[in-house]
Amino acid sequence: MTSHSDSRTVRLGLVGVGRIGRLHAQTVARQLKQAELVALTDIDQNSAQQVAREFGVPKVATKFQELVADPSIEAVVICSATNTHVPFIIEAAQHGKHIFCEKPIAADLSEIDKALSVVEKAGVKLMIGFNRRFDADIQRLKKAIDSGEIGTPHMLRLVSRDPAPPPIEYIKVSGGLFFDMTIHDFDVSRFLFGDVVEVYAAAGVLVDPAIGAAGDVDTAMITLKFANGAIGSIENSRRAVYGYDQRFEVFGSKGSAASANHYANTVTVSTNQSIARDLPLYFFLERYTGSYQAELGAFVRCLVEDTPPPVTGLDGRAPVVIAQAALISYKENRPVRLSEIK
Amino acid sequence: MTSHSDSRTVRLGLVGVGRIGRLHAQTVARQLKQAELVALTDIDQNSAQQVAREFGVPKVATKFQELVADPSIEAVVICSATNTHVPFIIEAAQHGKHIFCEKPIAADLSEIDKALSVVEKAGVKLMIGFNRRFDADIQRLKKAIDSGEIGTPHMLRLVSRDPAPPPIEYIKVSGGLFFDMTIHDFDVSRFLFGDVVEVYAAAGVLVDPAIGAAGDVDTAMITLKFANGAIGSIENSRRAVYGYDQRFEVFGSKGSAASANHYANTVTVSTNQSIARDLPLYFFLERYTGSYQAELGAFVRCLVEDTPPPVTGLDGRAPVVIAQAALISYKENRPVRLSEIK
Amino acid sequence: MTSHSDSRTVRLGLVGVGRIGRLHAQTVARQLKQAELVALTDIDQNSAQQVAREFGVPKVATKFQELVADPSIEAVVICSATNTHVPFIIEAAQHGKHIFCEKPIAADLSEIDKALSVVEKAGVKLMIGFNRRFDADIQRLKKAIDSGEIGTPHMLRLVSRDPAPPPIEYIKVSGGLFFDMTIHDFDVSRFLFGDVVEVYAAAGVLVDPAIGAAGDVDTAMITLKFANGAIGSIENSRRAVYGYDQRFEVFGSKGSAASANHYANTVTVSTNQSIARDLPLYFFLERYTGSYQAELGAFVRCLVEDTPPPVTGLDGRAPVVIAQAALISYKENRPVRLSEIK
Amino acid sequence: MTSHSDSRTVRLGLVGVGRIGRLHAQTVARQLKQAELVALTDIDQNSAQQVAREFGVPKVATKFQELVADPSIEAVVICSATNTHVPFIIEAAQHGKHIFCEKPIAADLSEIDKALSVVEKAGVKLMIGFNRRFDADIQRLKKAIDSGEIGTPHMLRLVSRDPAPPPIEYIKVSGGLFFDMTIHDFDVSRFLFGDVVEVYAAAGVLVDPAIGAAGDVDTAMITLKFANGAIGSIENSRRAVYGYDQRFEVFGSKGSAASANHYANTVTVSTNQSIARDLPLYFFLERYTGSYQAELGAFVRCLVEDTPPPVTGLDGRAPVVIAQAALISYKENRPVRLSEIK
Repeated sequence: MTSHSDSRTVRLGLVGVGRIGRLHAQTVARQLKQAELVALTDIDQNSAQQVAREFGVPKVATKFQELVADPSIEAVVICSATNTHVPFIIEAAQHGKHIFCEKPIAADLSEIDKALSVVEKAGVKLMIGFNRRFDADIQRLKKAIDSGEIGTPHMLRLVSRDPAPPPIEYIKVSGGLFFDMTIHDFDVSRFLFGDVVEVYAAAGVLVDPAIGAAGDVDTAMITLKFANGAIGSIENSRRAVYGYDQRFEVFGSKGSAASANHYANTVTVSTNQSIARDLPLYFFLERYTGSYQAELGAFVRCLVEDTPPPVTGLDGRAPVVIAQAALISYKENRPVRLSEIK
Repeated sequence: MTSHSDSRTVRLGLVGVGRIGRLHAQTVARQLKQAELVALTDIDQNSAQQVAREFGVPKVATKFQELVADPSIEAVVICSATNTHVPFIIEAAQHGKHIFCEKPIAADLSEIDKALSVVEKAGVKLMIGFNRRFDADIQRLKKAIDSGEIGTPHMLRLVSRDPAPPPIEYIKVSGGLFFDMTIHDFDVSRFLFGDVVEVYAAAGVLVDPAIGAAGDVDTAMITLKFANGAIGSIENSRRAVYGYDQRFEVFGSKGSAASANHYANTVTVSTNQSIARDLPLYFFLERYTGSYQAELGAFVRCLVEDTPPPVTGLDGRAPVVIAQAALISYKENRPVRLSEIK
Repeated sequence: MTSHSDSRTVRLGLVGVGRIGRLHAQTVARQLKQAELVALTDIDQNSAQQVAREFGVPKVATKFQELVADPSIEAVVICSATNTHVPFIIEAAQHGKHIFCEKPIAADLSEIDKALSVVEKAGVKLMIGFNRRFDADIQRLKKAIDSGEIGTPHMLRLVSRDPAPPPIEYIKVSGGLFFDMTIHDFDVSRFLFGDVVEVYAAAGVLVDPAIGAAGDVDTAMITLKFANGAIGSIENSRRAVYGYDQRFEVFGSKGSAASANHYANTVTVSTNQSIARDLPLYFFLERYTGSYQAELGAFVRCLVEDTPPPVTGLDGRAPVVIAQAALISYKENRPVRLSEIK
Repeated sequence: MTSHSDSRTVRLGLVGVGRIGRLHAQTVARQLKQAELVALTDIDQNSAQQVAREFGVPKVATKFQELVADPSIEAVVICSATNTHVPFIIEAAQHGKHIFCEKPIAADLSEIDKALSVVEKAGVKLMIGFNRRFDADIQRLKKAIDSGEIGTPHMLRLVSRDPAPPPIEYIKVSGGLFFDMTIHDFDVSRFLFGDVVEVYAAAGVLVDPAIGAAGDVDTAMITLKFANGAIGSIENSRRAVYGYDQRFEVFGSKGSAASANHYANTVTVSTNQSIARDLPLYFFLERYTGSYQAELGAFVRCLVEDTPPPVTGLDGRAPVVIAQAALISYKENRPVRLSEIK
């Protein structure tokens, strides 16, 4: 099993040192024995310099093109703004680099398809950063399904509420709730229950009228029908005042498996007022830290072991199709078949 | 506060000594100081005799007409088959008896309206047996809303799964899942979040093909839109192998409140296999015992204190409208406005 | 199994209609098919009259002697003050009545032994009211031991805290914390782990100096050594501001089993302050209602079926011995063997 | 606040690359920005080489003396066998190195005192590795006390059970359960409730007779009396088959605070057998990872900021005194005042 190549080190370049990019840099620097971050870049060169210093990255490139031109770099990690994903994927692929790209690839399917086509021709590996698939809870739910513990899947429920809405400026460019938030839930749904064939989205503006004014919704209840006949429900809110609420449940013919929220401590305080505990972990960086680390480890492993990436380009495309269907469903108030989306 | 009339005893007659009827007889006999069960009847006279003996009921009538003809009886408790509800309500009302009637009044709206019209003309009180409104958990959720604890209501979720399907024979006459099972969830939805304006039902036959052959579904995910702008989701399954699953959650601008399942004991057993507890209470008679007792107490109280019944005839009608809309929604695969239902 | 005698009705007399006596009267009147409360008495005749009316008891006797002189009465339920237990047991036994007596029999062993001796000579049944043995949680812990689920018992922990201290007047006559409160925990210890051979009690006055002034302690941590080699710990406080705290744990070679507190509802409320639930059930009458009902049912059953009572006179004596040893242990600050207690 | 010295890097040497030493090396290499591990050593030079390679430590010394002789090294981390702690502390202090030393310093008080005396004369900082003080749960319990949330402390309970006994060879040299296992609980007790004045230890051999044959016990229930009048209970077992059991509770005049076990995932699986979850984290390396990292961070911070170490030499001495008292208590079966221990 352990061949020579299994113990080699993968040389990586990274673009975009925002919250997620910085976390990926840290993971490569501190967690991954078989990877080395040899260069990074960002449109904000100061940030790039700072992250490079922090994690001992030897080189800061002035632009992405420098990374892909570096023959010593085997693969790139793309954490820059969404609108750069497709051009960067294409450039990287054309230079023969393997690619890890943050979700979503793009909101436009033809753009995505162009990128996937270039990747395929180039024969490089492309993995999309749907980190939740690597979360211990979601892995355990997956195991409950795959092992037969819960029997044939019947129903899926994803409660997914953010602690606070993003800035209105972000909402205006993100594609909206279905594209920037539910996209993760669409991916988890596919990961757990397989292909989706139809979606119905009930949604509204209940949290903040400014979100509505920006053309988006902040509250949604989405029904999914799966190819296997199962039914799912996703509940989203842009604001749960008690913090990040991430609870998932799979129900089947032989039982159910359900996950709970995560907390910074387990302490319960009992007073003459209540039996209470502190709020859950605040947001995705706290709650999903482990999964971000694990996904990058899986990417490096698929390079070292030359196996298919665990989250493919098509896995990156599929939730965008669902999001598009959800948006039409909401606007036209009707169930929408994914086959309608071209 | 305590007037003469407050301490009087209400004389009741009861029809139908099936599971629920027997439980109501027991509640009157053993729990309610201000009520007395003076006669009961059932088409199975042997059962009637047996229940009468068990709870010290002095008289067994041969038919419902005997009960309503008895001038010493002030109110009747109707627990007989659903198709008898409307004629019995009408007879009772015409004899000036107050009425407690098990849900549903009927599946046909014109039948319901006929009954409600007679009740109104007769000026008697009619209370419908939506027992869950009297459950301690659901009362606590209601209080979390009414007190402002959770702020403005945004989302409702009702997970409602039975431990095992009813007999196929029952399914053939019950009106199906939306009418015999979800009807309770529709009522709880209205109790917690108010009027429903639209419903979308995704459903299927995943538990048992025989249920499908009988023309019904056994699995459903139902989206509700409320008049106040909130959105709800009801999940039903005819079979949760681990037992009766009844979990409810209300989410709003200031927080959420969620209930959990009920168990016969609180003991957790830790072995080298797992950290486990025994299964939850098996079914509605075990889980909702307290609410059945409380609702009958509320009925007697509204007679003694001459106040409006806490669950009115219109409360009995409204969930039937939602169930009808849900059935159309499922069959036509589209959201259905309640205003479509005549 | 079901003989003629199995369906007969046991005629009972009851003395003492305080909180527990009233509850027992209610249980006989409303829960126990095979028992009938034919007479009761209390030094407060008004209270006796009131309880008799409430539960339909046909006769109020002026004194206990009237009850035992009534040839139609088969057994007596003694719920009067502790100092009357021994004389009433003796009188009842001498009249051939079976006896259910609230705990403790007495604080003085020679008094207890006198009573037990008379009972034995008379050949009547005596059951002591250690209700917790009939609690669903404690029964489940017992089953975890008896079934081998947790293997060989190693350690026992009983956390037992009251919501508020009793009146100082009560403390002055009760014998103190070990006799009026821990006595239940000593009994549960024996029920679960068998004979105790040694006790060490660390205790103090931390809740209220007035309790110390009355010669008692309000806080105790008691170590038990069992005949089987296992070790136990009992923790008592007279005041847990959040309510009645009753949590028990048995630990053995193959695992552990632990019970939790009981609540009036299961609802968790999440706000921007905390994830909280309401306080547990307030005190023993709320928490242990079911066990009080079950113990009286067990008493009636042992009469109807002519089987030994499930909690014997010796079971009533043993915790008093432990309490005496605990008191010596506390006063002399040393472990005390039960064999020292004569 | 942030002076020049605050941003400097502390150069560390480390001795002993067993489980804990390796973890500390990893923490310095990957977590602590202000520390650098410049050399390490171990009697097993191969292991030393391997750990050095793994975490990029530039130098492997052949013996501890080389570390302390290196003028570039500011502080040493001692993770070698317990019997080396005192000589290594003395050598390091005499070379003017600050010291982080794993617990326990030694089992012999005169040895400890000799070391502490040399440290004091040398004016170096000494911090003892009682990692649990840095655990998020225990920190939260401490805050519940310090903030007044639970009022005046009355009772402490520590349930502390290992998943499996150590090898018999280890037990023979460790000083036994009170010295190698309870020592942590004694420290946590002091951390939470302050000085202990008396101890009573009930203990036995219930897990494995071989442990008894080696002169040790494997099961203990220990009562502590604190200087502030509060009472504590520690429960230890060498083997909880379901895994590492670490639950702590502080109870006071205004309430209680209690921690729970930690798990690798939050998923609950419901089947027709039980409602179950996977076993807790296996042992201390998994459960207390965060606290090991945090304690070393605190050590580095106290060097950088020139503040007193948060766990002092006297904090290292005190639990040894309690352990000695516990051993006498067990052997003589009596409560032992700490003032008896010289």
